[in-house]
Amino acid sequence: MFLPMRAVDLIERKRDGGELSPEEIRWLISQYVAGQVPDYQMAAFLMAVYFQGMTEAETVALTQAMLESGDWIDLSEIPGTKVDKHSTGGVGDTVTLILVPLMGAAGLVMAKLSGRALGHTGGTIDKFESIPGVRTELSLPEVIRQAKEIGVVIADHTAELVPADRLLYGLRDVTGTVPSLPLIAGSILSKKLAGGADAIVLDVKCGDGAFMRTQEDAQALGETLVRVGNQLGKRFSALITAMDQPLGYMAGNALEVRQAIQVLQGEGPHDLREVTLALGAELLLLAGEEPDAGKAEEKLVRLLDSGAAWEVFRALVRAQGGEVGAIEDPSRLPQTREVVEIPALAPGYVQRLEARKVGLAAGLLGAGREVKGQGVDPAAGVELLAKVGDQVEQGQPLARLHVGRAERLPEAKRLIETAYTIGETPPQPGPLILGRVR
Amino acid sequence: MFLPMRAVDLIERKRDGGELSPEEIRWLISQYVAGQVPDYQMAAFLMAVYFQGMTEAETVALTQAMLESGDWIDLSEIPGTKVDKHSTGGVGDTVTLILVPLMGAAGLVMAKLSGRALGHTGGTIDKFESIPGVRTELSLPEVIRQAKEIGVVIADHTAELVPADRLLYGLRDVTGTVPSLPLIAGSILSKKLAGGADAIVLDVKCGDGAFMRTQEDAQALGETLVRVGNQLGKRFSALITAMDQPLGYMAGNALEVRQAIQVLQGEGPHDLREVTLALGAELLLLAGEEPDAGKAEEKLVRLLDSGAAWEVFRALVRAQGGEVGAIEDPSRLPQTREVVEIPALAPGYVQRLEARKVGLAAGLLGAGREVKGQGVDPAAGVELLAKVGDQVEQGQPLARLHVGRAERLPEAKRLIETAYTIGETPPQPGPLILGRVR
Repeated sequence: MFLPMRAVDLIERKRDGGELSPEEIRWLISQYVAGQVPDYQMAAFLMAVYFQGMTEAETVALTQAMLESGDWIDLSEIPGTKVDKHSTGGVGDTVTLILVPLMGAAGLVMAKLSGRALGHTGGTIDKFESIPGVRTELSLPEVIRQAKEIGVVIADHTAELVPADRLLYGLRDVTGTVPSLPLIAGSILSKKLAGGADAIVLDVKCGDGAFMRTQEDAQALGETLVRVGNQLGKRFSALITAMDQPLGYMAGNALEVRQAIQVLQGEGPHDLREVTLALGAELLLLAGEEPDAGKAEEKLVRLLDSGAAWEVFRALVRAQGGEVGAIEDPSRLPQTREVVEIPALAPGYVQRLEARKVGLAAGLLGAGREVKGQGVDPAAGVELLAKVGDQVEQGQPLARLHVGRAERLPEAKRLIETAYTIGETPPQPGPLILGRVR
Repeated sequence: MFLPMRAVDLIERKRDGGELSPEEIRWLISQYVAGQVPDYQMAAFLMAVYFQGMTEAETVALTQAMLESGDWIDLSEIPGTKVDKHSTGGVGDTVTLILVPLMGAAGLVMAKLSGRALGHTGGTIDKFESIPGVRTELSLPEVIRQAKEIGVVIADHTAELVPADRLLYGLRDVTGTVPSLPLIAGSILSKKLAGGADAIVLDVKCGDGAFMRTQEDAQALGETLVRVGNQLGKRFSALITAMDQPLGYMAGNALEVRQAIQVLQGEGPHDLREVTLALGAELLLLAGEEPDAGKAEEKLVRLLDSGAAWEVFRALVRAQGGEVGAIEDPSRLPQTREVVEIPALAPGYVQRLEARKVGLAAGLLGAGREVKGQGVDPAAGVELLAKVGDQVEQGQPLARLHVGRAERLPEAKRLIETAYTIGETPPQPGPLILGRVR
């Protein structure tokens, strides 16, 4: 007797700790995307996965099935290694705006698809769009054409890529099934694979301002991503990087663009530069461009200091319709009318600076969205004047709030005031790069 | 700041092993019934409950919230104790058809709301309707009026009672969340409470043909039901009864009515009679009618043997429009044209007789539904000629199949052939009443 596949049988098998075959997973995902398996069955399945996990083979099959749900970017006719990067999200994480032109300067192709601000973390697309004129909603042929012409692209994720992820993520978000390793892996990897790169570096953020709070969790995610990604035929590696305090001194869209420009001009904050170089070096290694990480970093430092990366950034902005004058003279980038300083209430050393609160404050001030579809204020955000280890006097300003939504100022103020912990002794600085998975 | 309740927060709390307040559970269930919490969030919540369970306080709140979702039957103006019974479902379980008139004969009020055949188990409503003319779709006022007039009713569950259970059960059925103790308890108890009785006995079936396969699981369910039920202000007790082989010799609608008539006339199979008397005795104890179970059983035996219960059954059938002539002369009950005997393939003792296979075979032959909404054949089913412990000769008929759906005969035959295990030694008979929870 022929028994048709039934979603309830697959849910029960997963619930009871069993394994699904690749065919079963493909069936489930394709039927879900086709509207044949309803949301409520998928929700029950996702919760069962939350509790029972997935084997590596299941996670590979899930990723593959999600990838197959939509279109993907074919960069194969462009010569050279195509690289990509993904960050699990942090505060002040402007790395993409620096890394893309840096990779272009190194002769690699990087067509980066990015997202918008979510929760307390910013989004590269919102940041890039804060440069007047920049257009990020490119069609897939436009992405490919620009990658061919100048080697670099920063474009908004389109609905044509991995529709399964759009549907699944929307469902996970409201059913308490976001924090599941195999589901996170499927979501991240299917999107990266659809992006068409050969070599991909993952920045798994770890700490107060990150999705993964502990190094153990971050390491587990990095290992799953690299193992599953490599099984899918691409070269992956992951760095675990600290996200206890924000990267750099800025949280907000135009504010972070300014910071990125500093690094692209050979300056800028040490931590942001260090993380960018480490991720870039991984990509040069994966691409086979350099024999070791030391040599790769040296090359990238030269490309920053020589202005080569900065030139690629100018070309990138120009190609996507942006006003190059606004990045050459960042005072022409959007600015809020109101700027409020937060003074230190006591003298001492900054011992902690909670990234999550800084991100939430920036979001409230206008850098993020409180409800889906809301616009962001490109100028709004938080400018940090003191970070962990800095000594401050009482009354000295700790941060400047660039106020886009005045009605949210009191709450943002409270968040920044409590984000800082000031004590009498200087803190022990921790490492920025916590781990590496290859 | 006022934070409105959000389903996703409750799902996450349950997922993480936390406890929900009665207010939160009431909100979740009422919003779900109102269509404000969608199926996919409820499905995720149910799967989280599957894994994390519920505390007794949560189960009480769930039952209460489900009860409050609809109407209930108010029997309070009828004098005397109102009793009720629930079975978790078995094969050949005709107890309700006997117990209702027996309780009526004992002077108690029993307005029993029942369901239809489901899976391998039969349904009292389908059985009762196999008596020509019987009408079971009574309105709530009709139920109350008949209970007042003759003390006994057997009616179909109406949609007005516990709509939350109808919605939740439909969802659980397709999301792999049926086998969860608190969800089972909420479903059973909310319906019993809506039925308006003061004292309720639960028959928790245990074994191959039951929902609960092991005595441990059955005991746990019985304890949960009684503890939670008593907290909700009614008198509950539970018996754990064996369901490895079917009760009695019949599985099928009119076939089981015949068997019930035998018991009501002081005859009939020993096991069916014993379980009915034990459940009835519990009700007399709960109602305070008798001081101990022995005395209660003696009273009930007298009511069977004297014909008093049989008289109430006749009144019950008449009140609901049935042809009394058909129960007085059971050869007038529906009969199939085709009857097929299954011979023993070897001589020996019947060592096992799998209730589940008998139930499935009866269903295939027409006593049950293969898809929702399908009609049943009142005459179809399985008549057992040998049960566990009986000695049989090779070729001697083990069972008669009353064939309603001829196309399903080969499959039903195979089921019955494999349902019997015949061996050389007589088996050790096990007890029928395995446990008692008061």
